[in-house]
Amino acid sequence: MDVVIILVASQMGENIGAAARAMANFGLSCLRLVAPRDGWPNPAAETMSSGAFAHMEPVEVFDDLSGALADVQFAYATSARPRGMVKPVATPQEAAQATLDKTQAGQRVAFVFGAERTGLENDDVARCHSLLQVPTAPDFASLNLGQCVLLVAYALFSAKLEAAGDISFDVEPPAPQADFDNLFDRLEIALDEGGFFKEPNLRPTVVRSIRNMLLRAGFTAQEVKTFHGVMSALKRAKP
Amino acid sequence: MDVVIILVASQMGENIGAAARAMANFGLSCLRLVAPRDGWPNPAAETMSSGAFAHMEPVEVFDDLSGALADVQFAYATSARPRGMVKPVATPQEAAQATLDKTQAGQRVAFVFGAERTGLENDDVARCHSLLQVPTAPDFASLNLGQCVLLVAYALFSAKLEAAGDISFDVEPPAPQADFDNLFDRLEIALDEGGFFKEPNLRPTVVRSIRNMLLRAGFTAQEVKTFHGVMSALKRAKP
Repeated sequence: MDVVIILVASQMGENIGAAARAMANFGLSCLRLVAPRDGWPNPAAETMSSGAFAHMEPVEVFDDLSGALADVQFAYATSARPRGMVKPVATPQEAAQATLDKTQAGQRVAFVFGAERTGLENDDVARCHSLLQVPTAPDFASLNLGQCVLLVAYALFSAKLEAAGDISFDVEPPAPQADFDNLFDRLEIALDEGGFFKEPNLRPTVVRSIRNMLLRAGFTAQEVKTFHGVMSALKRAKP
Repeated sequence: MDVVIILVASQMGENIGAAARAMANFGLSCLRLVAPRDGWPNPAAETMSSGAFAHMEPVEVFDDLSGALADVQFAYATSARPRGMVKPVATPQEAAQATLDKTQAGQRVAFVFGAERTGLENDDVARCHSLLQVPTAPDFASLNLGQCVLLVAYALFSAKLEAAGDISFDVEPPAPQADFDNLFDRLEIALDEGGFFKEPNLRPTVVRSIRNMLLRAGFTAQEVKTFHGVMSALKRAKP
């Protein structure tokens, strides 16, 4: 995804580093700084990044937002509050979905974040096409810069994975049904030997219940073997 | 949502504070600590929380995970790596959706996070019903504890908002159509006065184009007034 993260007038190097770390965690590599308070490079950012910059393109520094947006087709201004401006407002998930569509059509999309305490100036917001607002609990709404970049970066990554149909993790497959049938046959014999079925007319129901119960666990081949071992051990145990 | 966040053997008070801040940002209030390294209360946690604890229930401390899970119906073990255990693995979004369903059915759900460097012990993972794994870029996968709690808390909050149909933000409504018609009538007259329509047979098409173009912007009542002012100013300007 051709996505640019732009931090405007960031004050703390630590926050730039945290933003970079969040970007690298979720595969974003293009960071632009507009007039960072403490200049660039910044050792505090390097420390906080946990080595993230090695996974990214070189950071670019601009004097103003206009320069940083020059080659960008669509920009989101992140904002914690409504701005009295008429602009669409997107959640991170909505913005991520729209960004996926735009970048697949060859556009470059930027997410613009303001200074830690004051946020973006209205003039900078006016350069962007949409607001992006993270919904929060009304009684405790303050997100820091690094957290905000993290949520946006994760939303973009999730949208991409979901589109690729790749969001599920691999799980050990269940054993083939034959293994399970074999296990269950052995169990049923053992239960008979142990006098488990006291009411012959209820037997089919009870057998079905046990089968359902065990099937639901979705044993793997290894677990089927383990269960055989358990049965053997139980049979060896004193009555 | 009846959700419990459980931090097991956390080392740094700062991380407990960051987790609390993330919880309060997204409306979670129940934090349980299992054997925190530096005991509890912890001044470093208080500082890092930015006052989050005032928005939460009192923190509960337990000796082991078993105690912290005693009244919980379903638990997710967060893990950065597969565990060689057969358990379902959920993304934060999948877990959030399932948690919404479970809590609406009256169940209490826990999210369990391990120590900073080592994660959860396998014995603790085995007490949980599902793994939760945050998908990350393969070349830079390390998320810290606070970030991980943030992503889970935000996923829960988003799932709840989405279910409430409440995730969109308010946008200033467009002006009533009459305001716009009035504006457009005035514009058309001014364009006539200015000799805009050079080809009388194309006039209907051109008028429709301009109307469409301006309608698409969805002017608010205030913006309609602004546009009137713009027109007036243009008419006063020298030809």
